[in-house]
Amino acid sequence: MKAISVLGSTGSIGTQTLEIAEEFPNQFKVVALTAGRNLPLLVKQIQKHTPEVVALADESLLPELQERLNSLSKENRPNPLPELIGGTDGLNTVASWDHADVVVTGIVGCAGLLPTLAAIKSGKDLALANKETLIAAGPVVIPELKRSGSRLLPADSEHSAIFQCLQGTPWAENARLSTGTPTPGLRHIQLTASGGAFRDWSIEELEKASVKDATSHPNWSMGKKITVDSATLMNKGLEVIEAHYLFGLDYDQIEIVIHPQSIIHSMVELADSSVLAQLGWPDMKLPILYCLSWPNRLETSWRRLNLTEVGNLTFKQPDTLKYPCMELAYSAGRFGGTMPAVLNAANEEAVAQFLQEKIHYLDIPKLIEHACEKHKVDIKSSPSLNDVIAVDKWSRKEVKIQAKKSKYQIPLSGL
Amino acid sequence: MKAISVLGSTGSIGTQTLEIAEEFPNQFKVVALTAGRNLPLLVKQIQKHTPEVVALADESLLPELQERLNSLSKENRPNPLPELIGGTDGLNTVASWDHADVVVTGIVGCAGLLPTLAAIKSGKDLALANKETLIAAGPVVIPELKRSGSRLLPADSEHSAIFQCLQGTPWAENARLSTGTPTPGLRHIQLTASGGAFRDWSIEELEKASVKDATSHPNWSMGKKITVDSATLMNKGLEVIEAHYLFGLDYDQIEIVIHPQSIIHSMVELADSSVLAQLGWPDMKLPILYCLSWPNRLETSWRRLNLTEVGNLTFKQPDTLKYPCMELAYSAGRFGGTMPAVLNAANEEAVAQFLQEKIHYLDIPKLIEHACEKHKVDIKSSPSLNDVIAVDKWSRKEVKIQAKKSKYQIPLSGL
Repeated sequence: MKAISVLGSTGSIGTQTLEIAEEFPNQFKVVALTAGRNLPLLVKQIQKHTPEVVALADESLLPELQERLNSLSKENRPNPLPELIGGTDGLNTVASWDHADVVVTGIVGCAGLLPTLAAIKSGKDLALANKETLIAAGPVVIPELKRSGSRLLPADSEHSAIFQCLQGTPWAENARLSTGTPTPGLRHIQLTASGGAFRDWSIEELEKASVKDATSHPNWSMGKKITVDSATLMNKGLEVIEAHYLFGLDYDQIEIVIHPQSIIHSMVELADSSVLAQLGWPDMKLPILYCLSWPNRLETSWRRLNLTEVGNLTFKQPDTLKYPCMELAYSAGRFGGTMPAVLNAANEEAVAQFLQEKIHYLDIPKLIEHACEKHKVDIKSSPSLNDVIAVDKWSRKEVKIQAKKSKYQIPLSGL
Repeated sequence: MKAISVLGSTGSIGTQTLEIAEEFPNQFKVVALTAGRNLPLLVKQIQKHTPEVVALADESLLPELQERLNSLSKENRPNPLPELIGGTDGLNTVASWDHADVVVTGIVGCAGLLPTLAAIKSGKDLALANKETLIAAGPVVIPELKRSGSRLLPADSEHSAIFQCLQGTPWAENARLSTGTPTPGLRHIQLTASGGAFRDWSIEELEKASVKDATSHPNWSMGKKITVDSATLMNKGLEVIEAHYLFGLDYDQIEIVIHPQSIIHSMVELADSSVLAQLGWPDMKLPILYCLSWPNRLETSWRRLNLTEVGNLTFKQPDTLKYPCMELAYSAGRFGGTMPAVLNAANEEAVAQFLQEKIHYLDIPKLIEHACEKHKVDIKSSPSLNDVIAVDKWSRKEVKIQAKKSKYQIPLSGL
């Protein structure tokens, strides 16, 4: 029986993690949760899983949560009631909860950074769905991992695919991800990308891309921000940086290939030219389950992959003109230090501006490039956590300022 | 440095093994060879690799080989000259040669059975390219493997793919193939089949299939017999039986999928529904190299797989009406005991009759089915080696007799 702590339990990764816990009641016990603002769902989760502790990022919501739990009839009230805590300290407490064996970090964006670091410092195994931890704070995280012995298990489907393919390598036997040392026998990895909502659009058509267009993902059902990242291919660019830290690879060893069916979740090319791939339906539950069951596999009754039903798997090179964010990410990764943090923060802010319909779709890469260009003179190669947080703030502010300039603003009449 | 013994050095597997030895002179040393009748090539191989011992299946050719070696000028003559031996004893001596670490068994058909068994009895690791060893003599081989501790490393591209995919399973850590015990966590395997020369032919067109048609394989360059097996899908049927013994799987766990591009060499479906696949260009050198380097991988400069160049991978269910040999193989495998030996021998003889243009292409499965049907009353479930050899002989004779009947004979005027 593994005890699980879930950071971001009401989000997409969190709810799927709890579904898995329900499906395997003899394997997993949820002992700690953190959530944002979705209190009705959180209450249901507490009723079902009776965790020992629950933390709310926003401390001011604690009384309301307490009230909701108290108002439950006796037979519906979880017994015992969980300890309720709040704020950053609360999140960190849950992340390093003594009774947890694995921490699932499903908090999106830089908000997940501090609790994820707390989990790492406590030496726990992490099911890492929060990319930003490595992308923004890779240079801070890697030494912490070495110190604490914490192991990062990738919950991202692409990195899980690579992790699964690498299980048979001598390196995997060490079962120590993210030590930043190169993987012997591993020559290249290929991250597959669906191509996102605009994979069949021409560059000219992209000028008119609306929020609605950009948030309709062809294969995966995900949040809005990540769906836009998928359309710009920034999602894949961020995954390249994540893979660099996770698997100790140079950027030249990491490639992106457009694979619209999202059946091959990623591939590794080994020293002798053999390629291993992991395949499955596009469903995050499998990579999450693998994080929780690793190094074992649990028997599921999930739908079998049927390639004769899929029929065709297609592959093409990504178009660098159509997807400038991809190149921006490679470039930021190669600069290293604080540059990926700037890239990531600029992207979050630019996508937010786009989702608020304040800028055009094609302005997203321009705003990111501007922030990265400006940061070049200030890069810190071995940043502290405070340095990372500082450049993150700076980058968001910089994008906000730029976005207000007339060349980016969408006129009131719209697109 | 690994010392290699090559059984069948002038055949397709043998020559590719020697190419690998040349390519990695610091890793591999060829210490023993056996060959059939291609003495000019054998002499060149002896010159290049200076093995300690060479055996000829046909003893009567020994003087000619000796003469060819003696007649070489001094600077071209291998020094020291290898010990030359012949006949079945000679092959067995090479197969269990003391100085060899790995034996590559590239002898096609049942001729390879005895030397392969000799290698197994000597406890050596085997790079198994001779399918018949397991197909015909599985019930004899499995107990021998357990006794001697010999390990079967599959050189067949499909089984190599599965072996590679399984490296990360707890089972693979035992590094003991072919113990006949089920593999935990392994739910299904899918053997990919190109569909062979007739994959785009209708059943009606197959009535007119000529030897030339049947021996033109779309993807792999192989011998004539195996190319016909590929057209009938008997090749895949035999691989199903081979996989049954290699990986300890029930026949229900082994599936065949038509994949015309031959890029995915096979797949495994694990307990949690995750699918792992091994990919590469259609080239036997990679699976042979993996047998020799396992559990490590050697750096090659072979052409990288480029999926964007391939563009499309397609998959479909095999048509059981078009490929009756496939079902015959499953059925023979399920009967077990001596039945797969009868199937295999009947197929060898039927294909020989077809290659001699004595029977029609569509008669191949009919002749095999006839032999298997007739054998049903005589199956031995735990046969001895002599039983296997006896049913093999019986089956060939039975097919020969049947083939002479007028309903199978092609009239002198041809197809």
